[in-house]
Parts: sequence; C-alpha cells; structure tokens
Amino acid sequence: MQHQQAWIINEYAKGDLTGNELSLVKIPQPDLNDGEVLIKTLLLSLDPSNRLWLSEEKDYLPQLQIGDVMRGLVVGRVEESKDDHFKVGDHVFAMLGWQQYAVVSAKQLTAQNAAIKFTPHPEIPLEAYVSALGLTGWTAYVGMHHIGNVNPGSKVLVSGAAGATGLAACQIAKATGCYTVGIAGSEQKCDLLRSKFELDGTIDYRNEQDLSAAMKAQFPNGIDVFFDNVGGEMLDAALENMAMNGVVVVSGSISQYQTLEEKDKVYGLKNTFMLASKRLRMEGFLILDYLEQMDSILPTMEQWLLEGKLQYRNTIVDGLENAQTALPRLFSGKNTGKLVINVAG
Amino acid sequence: MQHQQAWIINEYAKGDLTGNELSLVKIPQPDLNDGEVLIKTLLLSLDPSNRLWLSEEKDYLPQLQIGDVMRGLVVGRVEESKDDHFKVGDHVFAMLGWQQYAVVSAKQLTAQNAAIKFTPHPEIPLEAYVSALGLTGWTAYVGMHHIGNVNPGSKVLVSGAAGATGLAACQIAKATGCYTVGIAGSEQKCDLLRSKFELDGTIDYRNEQDLSAAMKAQFPNGIDVFFDNVGGEMLDAALENMAMNGVVVVSGSISQYQTLEEKDKVYGLKNTFMLASKRLRMEGFLILDYLEQMDSILPTMEQWLLEGKLQYRNTIVDGLENAQTALPRLFSGKNTGKLVINVAG
Repeated sequence: MQHQQAWIINEYAKGDLTGNELSLVKIPQPDLNDGEVLIKTLLLSLDPSNRLWLSEEKDYLPQLQIGDVMRGLVVGRVEESKDDHFKVGDHVFAMLGWQQYAVVSAKQLTAQNAAIKFTPHPEIPLEAYVSALGLTGWTAYVGMHHIGNVNPGSKVLVSGAAGATGLAACQIAKATGCYTVGIAGSEQKCDLLRSKFELDGTIDYRNEQDLSAAMKAQFPNGIDVFFDNVGGEMLDAALENMAMNGVVVVSGSISQYQTLEEKDKVYGLKNTFMLASKRLRMEGFLILDYLEQMDSILPTMEQWLLEGKLQYRNTIVDGLENAQTALPRLFSGKNTGKLVINVAG
Repeated sequence: MQHQQAWIINEYAKGDLTGNELSLVKIPQPDLNDGEVLIKTLLLSLDPSNRLWLSEEKDYLPQLQIGDVMRGLVVGRVEESKDDHFKVGDHVFAMLGWQQYAVVSAKQLTAQNAAIKFTPHPEIPLEAYVSALGLTGWTAYVGMHHIGNVNPGSKVLVSGAAGATGLAACQIAKATGCYTVGIAGSEQKCDLLRSKFELDGTIDYRNEQDLSAAMKAQFPNGIDVFFDNVGGEMLDAALENMAMNGVVVVSGSISQYQTLEEKDKVYGLKNTFMLASKRLRMEGFLILDYLEQMDSILPTMEQWLLEGKLQYRNTIVDGLENAQTALPRLFSGKNTGKLVINVAG
C-alpha cells in the first residue's frame, strides 16, 4: 500500500492560531473500490473558512474530529477512476482535504455537491481556477448579482477589498457599471485598488478615526449594496450609511473568526435596528448552494478574465508542508490576493 | 376661525419618556382651499414608532420640528371635501397627527401614500381597523407572508407576542398552518397565548435564565422564521437558533428605542456572523411601502376576523388629552394588545 502526506487535526483552535492545531503525517492511500476515484491535489486554497473548520463552533459542514484530515478546497485532477462520471485526466473543483491524494466515492462527491468537473481554458493558467475563476470569484459573483442584485449605477461598498473575494467583488461591480468603493488596510493596498483596479474610491480603515464619516464622504446619498467580508465595526459603520432598501451581502466576518470561542471579545453590532427603519436586507449565502449554476457563469467569467476585466493576484506558497505556517497570514492583514498552496501544480 | 386641540412637540425625547416631550395646545383650524379635505380623527393609534418620531435620530419619515403637531396613525372620517377622490363620510387610514381635525391636500395624501380609503365591514367594529385590520395587522401579514414567506409547517417564533403586532403575527402564522411559538414577558401573557390563541408554545422571557436554551428546547431543529418586534438580546439568542436558510423578519426593535440617543446603552448583537454560516436573511420593511396591496389583502383579513381566526385585544383610552400619559405603557411591558386613543369614536 502506498503512503501520502496529510495534515490532520491535532487540537481545536482557540483565539489566535498557534501552529499546533495540525500535524503533518504519513497516511496510507487505500486502493480503489468500485465507484471510487483517486484525485490528485494540484492546488490547495487557503480560506478564512479554514479557521471555522478548525473550531469546535458549529458550522455549515460536519464538525471535524481530532485525527481527521483537515478540510480544504482543492483544484485536482482525476488520476484513477472506477466510476463513469469521472474520467482520468478530468479537472475538478472539490471540497477535499489538506493531502496529496484523496480516494473518494464519486456518488458521495456529486450528492454532496462536493466536486464539479471543469475544463481549464487553454489560454488561462490553472491557478486562476483557485481564485478569480474558483470559489473565490464565484462567491463574489453570486454575492454581487444573486444576493446584492447590483445594476449599472448601483453604489457599492466592498470591505476586505484587497483580499481575494473582495478584489473579485470590486471588479465584478466595476464590470457591471457600479460606483465602487473598497475598504482596505493600508495606503499601499488602497493605491493599488484605485490605480490598477480603477475603483472610484477607497477607504484605508487603519487610517480613519471615524469609519462612518469616511463612508459618508464617499456615499453622501447612501450605500445601495455593501459586500461585507469583515463584519464587526465595519459592518456597524456601514449600517449607519446604507441607503433606503439597501442590501448587506454577508460574505464573511473575518474580523470575528478569531474570537468565536470567546464571546466577550466578539464585537456587538449596534445598528441593526436600522434594518427596520431603512427597510434593509442583510443576507448570508453559501457558495456551495450555487455550484450547479457555475457551468453557466464560468464562461462569462473566463471571458472577463481574458479581457482583463477580472484580474487576480495569487500568493502561491510551494509545498503542502508549508500550509499550516501560511494560514495565519489571512488573519494578520498581511496577505494580498488569494493564498494558495501549490501541492503538485 | 374654529380652534381644535392638538399635541405639539415641546422637546425631543432622550432615554425614558418623561411626559414633557409634548404639550397640548389649541390651534386654529383653517378653512378649506380647493383640493383640500377636512378629516376628523376618530381613533388614534399609539405605536412604538411614535418613540422614533419623538427622537432627533433619523427615521424613514421627515424629522418633526419643535412646535410641530405630533405625527400619528389615525382612523378618520372625511367631514368636508374640496377634492373628487375623497367624499364626505369616507373612512380613511391616514398618517396624520395627534389632533382632533386635519386639513390636508388630497394630492399630497395620495402621493405620499399617507391615506387610503376603506369601507368598514358592517359586522366589524371600527376599532378593529386600528389593530388587527389596520397597520398593525397589515405589518404582521406582510412580515409573515411577503418577507418571511411562511408556509404550512414552517417553524415560527414571534417576539413581543402579546403586543399588538406580535399577536396578529402569531395568529396569521397559526392560520397559515405554522408551528408557532410566542415570546412574552409574563406567565399570564403566555397562558393567554396558549389558551386563547392556541400557540404551540410560549417563552416567558422574564423567567428564563438562558433564552437561547429556551428557544432550543422548542425548536430542536431550528427556527425557520423569526418575526422580531424586540431586537437586542432576544434577536441574538434567536440568531443562535435559526435553521439553515432561515429568515429574521425585522418588524421592530422596541427594546432599543429608548436607548437610541445613548449608543453605549444599545445592545450589541454578537451573532450576526451566523448570517453567512447558516445562509440567513434578515430583512426590514416598512408597511407604508405595501399600502397599495392592502385593498386585496383586507378582505381576507376581514374574513379571518369574522371566523375568529384573527382576534384582537385593544386597550382603549378615552380622550385625546390622555395620549401623552398613555404612550409610555408601550415600553414598560405593561400593555397587552393594541393601545388606542378614542378621540371621537
């Protein structure tokens, strides 16, 4: 029997990540039974939701147990198959693990919407499919269009605008013809958003005494759609500045994930009463619910990418063994763009 | 020129109502110009939103100024008319004031959706049209059906269930075939909700150490629709107990209205990050946006009322002069049902 490398859960996370949550081990790689496929991990996506899966707090997916392989989104390739749907050489987006290979039941994968096949465009590098053309970009697309219902002329604010999802959200809003302002954590990031990504305005939140006033200055008539990746104080300030009938797209609450286990450190939102007085809608969503629609959305996004309307910035870290050390970058504000582990790309 | 009684704003409210916010004065009642109507106030509705209008905080309606007549919802009758749409004797629901008579431009009333005509059903007392068949009942209907999208079998929780809107919401949920649990502030109110209004369960929030656990006990598989009149701690506990894809109908935040001017006293919501992980929608609405649909909804509600499916409890206080003293009852938890001032009913 062959062996492979995998990260397994050693202890649950509490507060800041310590780097002891996971252990890199060798695990056996079983032979295929009928109906199973062997998927080779090419690229592993590191996402804020990894922090949730390391927590004992309830999530939308089953709780991982101590000793389980860490869950992760991968772009992989079918290496062996005893199933008709998946052929050797097929590329897949899949919810698998932090490991070199996964042996999985094809039925289970499709039933749980945990894997979809795709054919990489010949002129587009594979790494685009873990960022702008992967779950990150789809989250931005679904959030802006299916939840936010943006139209040309909508006034849109995006938090975490220099992060992977935020950057995609900003570009999709711009491509749709929206007035688009991004919030990021340094003047350098803000400069980049204005110059390279042509945003209509930016807010450097680390440099603002009064976030609400800074928003007011850029949205004198209110925000139509706030695409929020951050939550906490930023969301509270945005609620104060929403226009009538505005929508808050709750993509994430990255500012709060590190405090989940300590309720007294969680920021308490004070302005939700405005949902009634301003008829606001605040809506969360899970991209996994929309996977079936991706076949129709992906060609549009590939086209935008080829036209330069949808750019991406990946930070690629080579080697599965560096995944645990790389993860905390997502929460320190030091990362720009999508964080990806190149496992065998 | 004739004179009439009216309550005018003396000072803006801060924190608990003191009873000095309004002054009862005699004001002149001007003659009608072309296009104007004279509406006699029959019944005046006292609502939590009155507290918002007394505040300097922004609201969905123009800020009232010191010296303005206090704003209020009335059931009135046209006494004189120089307009074709409104005839003498017509009954109206209207957003007018705390006064005996109002002289208003008919065009303005209809343009602002501030008044709609109705014909009281001969077997239904007029006071039903300020509660179960008035804005209160419509708010419950629109919240449950247009925002919450309840279906037979939906698991529904209602806060402020013994209040006017909450009581209507509970009955509409029951009439739709939902599993319906109400939260109220005394065992007496809870008994009434179970015995007279046949709710499937109740939670006496003053008697619960752990609201979230109390909700969990009645909704082991989660809440599909939370119709919230209260906000604050109750909303936070409900967010913890929402089912996947659940909806929070933000009808009001009565627990927070008295603290609007003192931000540090506002309860901070800690569980909104669950909007993303559970794909929740949390949506506010304003009944005034739905007035045009009321012509089609009102007959259904009248029918429910005649069949006993939609009962109401009004607390009627006689005399416009008692309006200011009556208002704080809404916030003390002492009131059951709809609080109404009988001005000339």
